[in-house]
Amino acid sequence: MIKGTNFIGSETSSEGTEVLQATNPQDNQKLPETFAVATEAEIQRAMEKAQAAFLEYRNYSGKQKATFLDAIADEIMGLEDELIHRASAETGLPNGRFEGERGRTCNQLRMFADLLREGSWVDARIDTAQPDREPIPKADIRRMLFPLGPVVVFGASNFPLAFSTAGGDTASALAAGCPVIVKSHESHPGTNELVSRAILSAAEKTAMPCGVFSSLNGGPETGQKLVQHPTAKAVGFTGSFGGGKAIYDLAQQREEPIPVYAEMGSINPVFLLDEKLENSAEELAKQYAGSVTLGVGQFCTNPGILVAQAGEALNRFSTALAEELSDYEPACMLNSKIADSYRGHRSELLEQEGVKALCTPSSETGTLGGAAVATVSGEDFLKNEALHREVFGPSTLIVFCADETQRLQIAQQLEGQLTITFMGNDKELTAREELINICREKAGRIIFNGVPTGVEVCDSMHHGGPFPATTNGMYTSVGTAAVERFVRPIAFQDCPDDLLPDELQDENPLDILRMVDGVQTTKKIG
Amino acid sequence: MIKGTNFIGSETSSEGTEVLQATNPQDNQKLPETFAVATEAEIQRAMEKAQAAFLEYRNYSGKQKATFLDAIADEIMGLEDELIHRASAETGLPNGRFEGERGRTCNQLRMFADLLREGSWVDARIDTAQPDREPIPKADIRRMLFPLGPVVVFGASNFPLAFSTAGGDTASALAAGCPVIVKSHESHPGTNELVSRAILSAAEKTAMPCGVFSSLNGGPETGQKLVQHPTAKAVGFTGSFGGGKAIYDLAQQREEPIPVYAEMGSINPVFLLDEKLENSAEELAKQYAGSVTLGVGQFCTNPGILVAQAGEALNRFSTALAEELSDYEPACMLNSKIADSYRGHRSELLEQEGVKALCTPSSETGTLGGAAVATVSGEDFLKNEALHREVFGPSTLIVFCADETQRLQIAQQLEGQLTITFMGNDKELTAREELINICREKAGRIIFNGVPTGVEVCDSMHHGGPFPATTNGMYTSVGTAAVERFVRPIAFQDCPDDLLPDELQDENPLDILRMVDGVQTTKKIG
Repeated sequence: MIKGTNFIGSETSSEGTEVLQATNPQDNQKLPETFAVATEAEIQRAMEKAQAAFLEYRNYSGKQKATFLDAIADEIMGLEDELIHRASAETGLPNGRFEGERGRTCNQLRMFADLLREGSWVDARIDTAQPDREPIPKADIRRMLFPLGPVVVFGASNFPLAFSTAGGDTASALAAGCPVIVKSHESHPGTNELVSRAILSAAEKTAMPCGVFSSLNGGPETGQKLVQHPTAKAVGFTGSFGGGKAIYDLAQQREEPIPVYAEMGSINPVFLLDEKLENSAEELAKQYAGSVTLGVGQFCTNPGILVAQAGEALNRFSTALAEELSDYEPACMLNSKIADSYRGHRSELLEQEGVKALCTPSSETGTLGGAAVATVSGEDFLKNEALHREVFGPSTLIVFCADETQRLQIAQQLEGQLTITFMGNDKELTAREELINICREKAGRIIFNGVPTGVEVCDSMHHGGPFPATTNGMYTSVGTAAVERFVRPIAFQDCPDDLLPDELQDENPLDILRMVDGVQTTKKIG
Repeated sequence: MIKGTNFIGSETSSEGTEVLQATNPQDNQKLPETFAVATEAEIQRAMEKAQAAFLEYRNYSGKQKATFLDAIADEIMGLEDELIHRASAETGLPNGRFEGERGRTCNQLRMFADLLREGSWVDARIDTAQPDREPIPKADIRRMLFPLGPVVVFGASNFPLAFSTAGGDTASALAAGCPVIVKSHESHPGTNELVSRAILSAAEKTAMPCGVFSSLNGGPETGQKLVQHPTAKAVGFTGSFGGGKAIYDLAQQREEPIPVYAEMGSINPVFLLDEKLENSAEELAKQYAGSVTLGVGQFCTNPGILVAQAGEALNRFSTALAEELSDYEPACMLNSKIADSYRGHRSELLEQEGVKALCTPSSETGTLGGAAVATVSGEDFLKNEALHREVFGPSTLIVFCADETQRLQIAQQLEGQLTITFMGNDKELTAREELINICREKAGRIIFNGVPTGVEVCDSMHHGGPFPATTNGMYTSVGTAAVERFVRPIAFQDCPDDLLPDELQDENPLDILRMVDGVQTTKKIG
């Protein structure tokens, strides 16, 4: 049962008088429960508990932390349909979507648990001593990765499970050994409460220190206070450019600047090459339409522009895409602000010089968002920055290039992106090396003959791209490498063996892969 | 022969009217050569050439880049005594010091060349496709590290070779595949010119693209313009907190924020434990004195404070240290600004409440800096922030603790440090786990029974610590891991094999270690 409290470690707390309420975007009616907004004192207590918990939790073994992460997944599954129904009521997305998203969320938690049990992720490096080296002896140096400290995680509107309370940021921070303080998203505080209870129940069952997880309700001000708190050592965020950049700036202006991993906007350009287009225009239009409308277009990897050579084949593609999208029934968006913003940005786009709408939704009321596609010439696209901005929703723009030179110019002009996609047969892809090389500098992931939506959770995933796609393109928020955001190396010089962490001891008791004197090995030392 | 020009790729250029001149700190006389300060147009040209070079250089193989780095080392050695004498004349440090520093610089370059030839540093990760996976097929995803783009490197006053023109920042950026633009340090423009010529000669001999290296003269304004230039993608800096933090702030305020790796101040605390102190007071004093005065105290790892239990043994240590330091002949510091600043900060320290000088230099004129040691009680240290600040030079402060609780309080209060050192026998080190754990959160490197000066260049070194020791404690500026500062991952999804970089191709033509489906292996795929 949802009680509307904050969670300060294992303690529930509702000291404030200010409350917030979720709205069901399907009928625009408020859901009955009220949620207490965290007070300054509650924020302070959560941060203090997180710091106290850190001093314990940082020393927990990988196996202990893995037990915790697995238990969170079990507890989330134990919420059964209550979670699915609440997430659906707070987002307007169908139950089926949340069965999938819950699976992804639990798989992520279990993936990090596996990473911890295996243990080599700490990147242990050992250089053994050379006491007889001339002109001076060489000391014994051993380094590995250690957690940074308490991490503030912001819930994301579009992924109440996989990128929120127990999502990738939380899972990777907990895996790293960092306590987490979640600022719940105002749109889905009930989903946050259910998941928070699951995490805290898992923490209790696996004997984690109180304060390893807290969750607070509130708006941007609550978020600001958390980011500015001296105890916070890093921030995870998924959302708009405005929101992410404001948090980034705030964190850099602290007395001690801290890293902010904000995944922000992206238009995820798709380059459709000539022969592929010629041969498969209709088939590609179908595939592309599916990507544009997936989740009512509310994915960070939604394809916002498609770039191709003007001509008969692109006309066929455009007609087919417009037909596909005109069949799309307007669907409920995450909240009325997002729906309003979608319609507003889309209108702005359609009013730009040279932009022609091919298909716009007919009956789009309240929180409903319908699909749209428009066209523009490469020339107009190049001279108008407004066309490079993300429209968050099921809308896309087809850029008709005059020639290959213009295509290259467009690629050159692109800002940092999460993804860039190429559709083409092998021969023409090979011939477009220059185009691909230009795009490589602009994106975190390059996709061939697929669509950008759908981000595989695995070791090799890089979900992050150059600014402004993220505030730090050197890191990913999806996949095992996400753990690297919350750690730093520490080196030990001539440390007695029994004072070293297990990972660095001579005997290699955890049997992990280590770099010893330049060679990757699981062997003992000495 | 030194000509006083800027180097814009392979072009020498002296368009400006403003010049700067080096001063020999030994006699405070200006050295004859004048150096042209770079104009805006020259800065612009250097950045444009760097960007153009990047588009070529990023695709060079590890073997090609290795040849370049090795050639730089050869060319530097080819400068013979001219380099040694010039560095000595511009810094006041003896020739012998520069023979050592030159060796370190060349070893660093060759170390990165070896890293590139081996090739596994790109952290290749491959997850192969599972076309039959339910409910949706799994794509083939492959990621590795790619260079960020042009890197601005600031020469450091205290290491004209190892942390300047061809120092660790330059070597690691070039290894990563990033062109480098050096802003030469005003104190040693001649050394910079000689080394720049060596780098450019190596670039020519190994057919590197023009613009892969540039070097510009100027003061803080020149540095600011370089950091603000949109083409710059990262910054390396070693110097004062004021300088580093200003560059950091500037870089964060850019339209596109970029990473700044600034290694700044540190007081490198040394904790001397009771039994060790009791048994070896005099021997430790000798060792410690050597570390305090090494390089006239002008090392970032210089030990600024020593913390121990008050009592007879610490009295003995203090007396012995004062004797050692009173034997130290005042020596020439890097420049008159640093010498003035040393004496000023030392005087301020000695005027603080409770601080007692045990030994101060008697005849200290001009650029000479003599050694000093003072004592203070733990109580006075805890309540006075001024005592936590770095005094750059051969001066140190002994903190007399009342008890173990106070020692822990002092550890708690420390700011981020490059290093923290413990001297103790095994038994007492084991008993001080709490103290060591507190310090672990404050430092990049923990040293046992050694001194903080002397930073080994190796895989396991972490030369970096939490803010304010550096602006980014997640990275090191020394050792092979320094290359990680200038790269970001890019993932390729379902990319045709022949379009992939060699490192990610099925055949593994470079025979590097890769993570394939979760397992580290050098095996081919398929």
